[in-house]
Amino acid sequence: MKNKSCIVHCPGTVANLVCGFDILGLALEAPFDVMHVTLISEPVVRIKNVDDYNLPTDPEKNVAGVVFLEAMKKTNGNIGFEVAIEKKIKPGSGIGSSAASAAGAAAAANYLLGNIFDNDELIQLAMHGEKLAAGVKHADNIAPCLLGGVTLIRSIHPLDVMSIPSPHLYVTVVHPQVEVKTSDARQILRTQVPLKDAIKQWGNIAGLITGFFKNDLDLIGRSLEDVIVEPIRSILIPGFDEVKQKCKDAGALGGGISGSGPSIFMLSADKETAENIGKVMHQVYEQIGITHHVYVTTINKHGVKVINTDESVVM
Amino acid sequence: MKNKSCIVHCPGTVANLVCGFDILGLALEAPFDVMHVTLISEPVVRIKNVDDYNLPTDPEKNVAGVVFLEAMKKTNGNIGFEVAIEKKIKPGSGIGSSAASAAGAAAAANYLLGNIFDNDELIQLAMHGEKLAAGVKHADNIAPCLLGGVTLIRSIHPLDVMSIPSPHLYVTVVHPQVEVKTSDARQILRTQVPLKDAIKQWGNIAGLITGFFKNDLDLIGRSLEDVIVEPIRSILIPGFDEVKQKCKDAGALGGGISGSGPSIFMLSADKETAENIGKVMHQVYEQIGITHHVYVTTINKHGVKVINTDESVVM
Repeated sequence: MKNKSCIVHCPGTVANLVCGFDILGLALEAPFDVMHVTLISEPVVRIKNVDDYNLPTDPEKNVAGVVFLEAMKKTNGNIGFEVAIEKKIKPGSGIGSSAASAAGAAAAANYLLGNIFDNDELIQLAMHGEKLAAGVKHADNIAPCLLGGVTLIRSIHPLDVMSIPSPHLYVTVVHPQVEVKTSDARQILRTQVPLKDAIKQWGNIAGLITGFFKNDLDLIGRSLEDVIVEPIRSILIPGFDEVKQKCKDAGALGGGISGSGPSIFMLSADKETAENIGKVMHQVYEQIGITHHVYVTTINKHGVKVINTDESVVM
Repeated sequence: MKNKSCIVHCPGTVANLVCGFDILGLALEAPFDVMHVTLISEPVVRIKNVDDYNLPTDPEKNVAGVVFLEAMKKTNGNIGFEVAIEKKIKPGSGIGSSAASAAGAAAAANYLLGNIFDNDELIQLAMHGEKLAAGVKHADNIAPCLLGGVTLIRSIHPLDVMSIPSPHLYVTVVHPQVEVKTSDARQILRTQVPLKDAIKQWGNIAGLITGFFKNDLDLIGRSLEDVIVEPIRSILIPGFDEVKQKCKDAGALGGGISGSGPSIFMLSADKETAENIGKVMHQVYEQIGITHHVYVTTINKHGVKVINTDESVVM
């Protein structure tokens, strides 16, 4: 008898959506990781990497691995998982590479175990992976990766996550290949911020949410302003100010640092503008002389996709 | 020939809507001021008070007066206004008494001058009155007073104001008759706030806006939390913590300080709860021994109401 298995597509995500630092994220149509997962009748997790990133295969040290181990704790049975992971989202790029592994593992486990987890439980489960990767449990990549679209994490304790309607927008992302450690990006933030800046920020987040609900692209554009985190973190990203200014000149609604960087994302109303913005990003980094990759994509509305397979995964 | 005249009803408003400090306000069905205004063919503003508050009748020193004077500057004609003001919103109560005068004057002038101002211009005009009253131009009482419902002031410079859909909610307001000067209430605020609190606040404001759009009363209730301003300002309001806790125990969705106080407001899903909450508020202040007034009302959806009259106002 064949073991039950599935393939999951785990999309990249943009967290810290400009003024929505720590609370707002969105899912991307591309890039996405591909994971083949098979339910087995041994209480182990076996991981095989089918990419060149050399991530740990010890499940205790692998972002997907810890999620599978955690899922196994929720069952009484003598079960485990065989996993082949093909990462297409480069680790450290700032578009939710670890969240894709964690969310993909949670979604695959849930499917193979007969959908025993609800959305909140899936997010909690996947957050074990983010904790391994980032040292803290956060959900602003996990939630959009699982749910798709734009998601608001109003609160982590207790978990309060919801989908926000999003217009059909194009997203252009540039990943300049410089290293920005999440821990560094977090440490340079000030622990105190001016009240007047905080007020400006919550005016903008309120405007952005309103813009999403009203499908008001101008309002979305006006609200995509971060007066607290971006002015500090952007120092770590060479070319940031130039990229941002030139992208806005080329018609971007707005954008900023993706996650904790170094990737930069821009939202556009149409494909042509999004593609032009990709060219602008390319030109800036070519001139500075930094290896980079550009993605032109859209907001992914469905989140992690689980594809039923009637074949065992060949490890 | 009779002069053109009108009556305006100018509603009270709740500014600083909990987590929406400085950006979010709502209009109340009651109480409201009544203003009789007549367009005259002399370049003067004559003010008569038909209440007991003894507000200045010199137009340069009267909140409505400065708005009428400002409106006159926008016309080329030899025109002025005669105004009889019956204030029912007690000055200093924290439910937008000066904003009602300012917004009412702006709306009356606009009507009598043939609707020459759009909404943004009306708000700008009325802000001259708020500047006289509070020393700074702010719009979070003005905007809901003019537009009705819940309004977001994303930005003052440049002005960016929008209506937020609001469910049919009941509002209970208690005005304990203690003096809280707006300037004092502003001075005790910290100029720096912890980033982690600011993040919590913008999570809540995003949740609150989402709750209003989705008509999700639970979400509205969960999001009505202010971790920045209320813990400090509530010190100035005797009985605040007790009122808040007992109102929530009695079924209020949530609430907080109205404007800069001393009034406290609570939102409820139904009339019976709102009335019970009024009784709770009354009991607390009776026990403390503070003179107080309780209003049980709803969110006003239309804002300032201008009633056409075909009579001159008898000064």
